[in-house]
Amino acid sequence: MKYIIVGGVAGGATAAARLRRMDEHAEIVLIERGEHISYANCGLPYYIGDVITDRSRLLVQTPEGFRGRFNVDVRVHAEVVAIDAEEHVVEVRDMRTGDIYKEPYSKLILSPGAEPFRPALPGIDIAGIFTLRNVNDSDRIKAYLKQVNATRAVVVGGGFIGLEMAENLHHAGLNVTIVELGDQLMAPLDKPMAAIVQQHVREKGVSLRLQSAVTEFAHSEDGSISVLLQDGDMLSADVVILSIGVRPDTRLAKAAGLSIGKAGGIVINEYLQTSHPDIYAVGDAVEFANPVTGRSMCTYLAGPANKQARICADNIVLGNKHVYNGSVNTAIVRVFDLTVATTGVAFKHLSAAGMPHIVSTTHSGSHAGYYPGAQDMSIQLAFSPDSGRLLGAQIVGHEGVDKRIDVISALMQHSGTVYDLVAYEHAYAPPYSSAKDPVNIAGAVAENILAGRHWIVHVSDMMDDERMTIVDVRTPEEYAAGSIPGAVNIPIDDLRTSIAQIPVQGRVVVFCHVGQRGYLAQRILLQHGYENVFNLSGGYKLWQSYHKENVRINAVKTI
Amino acid sequence: MKYIIVGGVAGGATAAARLRRMDEHAEIVLIERGEHISYANCGLPYYIGDVITDRSRLLVQTPEGFRGRFNVDVRVHAEVVAIDAEEHVVEVRDMRTGDIYKEPYSKLILSPGAEPFRPALPGIDIAGIFTLRNVNDSDRIKAYLKQVNATRAVVVGGGFIGLEMAENLHHAGLNVTIVELGDQLMAPLDKPMAAIVQQHVREKGVSLRLQSAVTEFAHSEDGSISVLLQDGDMLSADVVILSIGVRPDTRLAKAAGLSIGKAGGIVINEYLQTSHPDIYAVGDAVEFANPVTGRSMCTYLAGPANKQARICADNIVLGNKHVYNGSVNTAIVRVFDLTVATTGVAFKHLSAAGMPHIVSTTHSGSHAGYYPGAQDMSIQLAFSPDSGRLLGAQIVGHEGVDKRIDVISALMQHSGTVYDLVAYEHAYAPPYSSAKDPVNIAGAVAENILAGRHWIVHVSDMMDDERMTIVDVRTPEEYAAGSIPGAVNIPIDDLRTSIAQIPVQGRVVVFCHVGQRGYLAQRILLQHGYENVFNLSGGYKLWQSYHKENVRINAVKTI
Repeated sequence: MKYIIVGGVAGGATAAARLRRMDEHAEIVLIERGEHISYANCGLPYYIGDVITDRSRLLVQTPEGFRGRFNVDVRVHAEVVAIDAEEHVVEVRDMRTGDIYKEPYSKLILSPGAEPFRPALPGIDIAGIFTLRNVNDSDRIKAYLKQVNATRAVVVGGGFIGLEMAENLHHAGLNVTIVELGDQLMAPLDKPMAAIVQQHVREKGVSLRLQSAVTEFAHSEDGSISVLLQDGDMLSADVVILSIGVRPDTRLAKAAGLSIGKAGGIVINEYLQTSHPDIYAVGDAVEFANPVTGRSMCTYLAGPANKQARICADNIVLGNKHVYNGSVNTAIVRVFDLTVATTGVAFKHLSAAGMPHIVSTTHSGSHAGYYPGAQDMSIQLAFSPDSGRLLGAQIVGHEGVDKRIDVISALMQHSGTVYDLVAYEHAYAPPYSSAKDPVNIAGAVAENILAGRHWIVHVSDMMDDERMTIVDVRTPEEYAAGSIPGAVNIPIDDLRTSIAQIPVQGRVVVFCHVGQRGYLAQRILLQHGYENVFNLSGGYKLWQSYHKENVRINAVKTI
Repeated sequence: MKYIIVGGVAGGATAAARLRRMDEHAEIVLIERGEHISYANCGLPYYIGDVITDRSRLLVQTPEGFRGRFNVDVRVHAEVVAIDAEEHVVEVRDMRTGDIYKEPYSKLILSPGAEPFRPALPGIDIAGIFTLRNVNDSDRIKAYLKQVNATRAVVVGGGFIGLEMAENLHHAGLNVTIVELGDQLMAPLDKPMAAIVQQHVREKGVSLRLQSAVTEFAHSEDGSISVLLQDGDMLSADVVILSIGVRPDTRLAKAAGLSIGKAGGIVINEYLQTSHPDIYAVGDAVEFANPVTGRSMCTYLAGPANKQARICADNIVLGNKHVYNGSVNTAIVRVFDLTVATTGVAFKHLSAAGMPHIVSTTHSGSHAGYYPGAQDMSIQLAFSPDSGRLLGAQIVGHEGVDKRIDVISALMQHSGTVYDLVAYEHAYAPPYSSAKDPVNIAGAVAENILAGRHWIVHVSDMMDDERMTIVDVRTPEEYAAGSIPGAVNIPIDDLRTSIAQIPVQGRVVVFCHVGQRGYLAQRILLQHGYENVFNLSGGYKLWQSYHKENVRINAVKTI
């Protein structure tokens, strides 16, 4: 058997190694356009920021090392330019000599990845405007920063990579501005959670230009780059990083006549076969049904690429035996001192897909409050109003965010429900968690909502409607330090004796700092004849960051 | 309705608060023998060690605060001395006045907890010998340490609490010796993992006396306590902490005629009802079927107690609607710089229960190796040879151990398999994990074993059998720094060319540092006609710590 693999990074290299372990005697050819294989592309921003100082550590395997270890014919600087699927032959171009030769295969694996999007704006080719895909890109960016002694950077695009780049350039000593087309950072987050991130990024000294489109790049007289925005503003930068997004690299697959799907990726079946049975595909270039929505999507994540590569190699050697079940899109990013993580589907996308869902927000300590060092995290869940099935989760916090998203991700992969979060058994000792883990608390609140015991209102609904009684059930000290406009203060422990102060008729919204006392207040009122009483989900804590951000956006609009 | 709850710590206080939220109008009486309710008993060792310096933080709720918040009639220093189940009446003794009075109830919840075991040894009542159960105990220990200016401590019992006490006393400046009856620390661990912990504890300067029984305590002339051991040795200590284990406090339940089970706990059904339908029980005092073994057991953990309390309150108010599914016994402890965590069933207990299982060990970095600060962790899995169902996991490491045990715990609760570990989708960015999470790797190795692709041998089997070829496939540098006696060095990258050096006949054991190169070596040899070739599970890393510990134990035996 002869296996050819196109693309030698995450998916390709993993597939090659697995193929070799499964079949010691096969001929395996790994063809990579670039200079390097199996490099740590997720580490590139940190290398640019000098958090990773040893470049050689990015190169998990060298072509030479891979050849020796796995007896794989590694060809770098080589590009597959055409596939003849019927003849089982690829055409390969040696990028150093320009020679083109043919190479037959029994089975072919495509792992071409995704390309950073580079919009056709005026001035886009000016020196100092970069995208980041591979080690050579990061070498070029690092060299350029030094060469021009860069002090000002503009990062276009406020997604995961954009934020990592912003943080790392800031870490390297540059003044950084993020320009983002949307009205928030990090599209997979919903607004209240994104608000927390935005405030943190600003506090760290990074400028944010939300709802801003770049229209042009230009040379400036002082040698810097002028970044022109749609609203007429101009930013000056020594370096520009484009992190607007990526697109599956499907040129080769398309030319070979393989099916391309609605999401723009190579269509694969559950065995990771393309529309031609002897061609498999893995990684960023494929699309597959999202297990939550059932809709086809591309997943630009290293974890799923590695899992696909392993399954793909097994299916090639064993005959299609292993099924890929899709990705729930679990992702995480460090943003300065914050950790931001998501799994499942963003709530706005659930709405767009017409999927009924309830959202609730809880805040909890990363570990027992009585043990030093506990830090807050905010968890937003979306779940089905009928079954309680988990549809999405977003967590923003510090220590322990990764743990909680991973647990929710694992359960979501198994069609888990909020009831599973309630019953979830975690490892508890004071340095690690509390007797009730943040995941348990998030689940319990959701369960109470589904049972009709807990009626909630969202911070986004608190902006307009003023025909309600708002009761702040926190302490007088907390109330004095700031509250929601119009709120009256009745501390929870006085609520039973002061209940007559609250009109029974009309809508009542109660709230506390995070939601726990508010829930108790709502339970008390509901059982004392109040029929229209709601607890503010996420409490004053969420309201405050959301409101602050809203005021800012409105102020921008007004100007 | 009138609900009485016996015991005001984890289970009792949670049940009372939940009952109130479910039923604002019920009469709720919480009866607690001690002075405090709802205190952080898991924090007590850290308070003694001055890691937690603010005592008031241990008191999560005061009786007064609880009354005000939840309108619960909290009675501390009050003991329920008898239950008349038929009459629905308890007898309560006011511990300050000695008065006994009767209190009727509609439903009763027992949450009496467990008592530390205090063996009837000569001298057990000498001043300075303590058990630790509540805040008052920790106050007494702290005061005593100061009073006698303690510099030497003996901790009897090397379980979770014993280790936390040892660490905290060490942190407080004492010389600490742990005396443990068994031949290892931490009974829920198996020996190779316990070996890692033992070496760490010794490195930190704590003395270990394994396989040592205390036979007597005596006053010493200098005012200290003499701790006499069965082997004739005597240890001098200023303070002794007994952490030998706990027993469910079932006196009241027994006297009331409630069923007590084989594990010594109060028998409950899936609704947490005792043998009398109007009496429920939760927490350390109950026994319930372990979901993995099906055997009844007591679980002395705060997490399950809290979950039970919530379910119990719901069942009382709503009529038995919610089912408790048992605990997979997920537990964690910090041991100096190590984190040690377990879930499911220890492998020796699987053997004892006659449950077929395969064990495998992997080592992985806590996050991507190219990103600074990654730390090793060791994962041992036990799984069913037929279905691959997860039966137990043990993890020893540093950062991120809690995350991995929690994910495995969550999956184990849902009868997860090693295949679920392979497919498990985690959140990956360089500070948090690798593209292949340690959990994925543990699962993949297990899957390969089940598929018959990966044949392993355990470190415990490497001690006696010398009729085999042992091949160290690490680099010459690694080999030179130390290897298994008798091993020949053929680096993995030379294996294909040097294969003739290895006799085809007879048993071959290959190994590397952690097992990955060893696995590849084994795959190569198996596909080159070697029929009897095994990879050392856990590699040289595990062999080394296990062997070191074994040499020590054998040395002790020889003396």
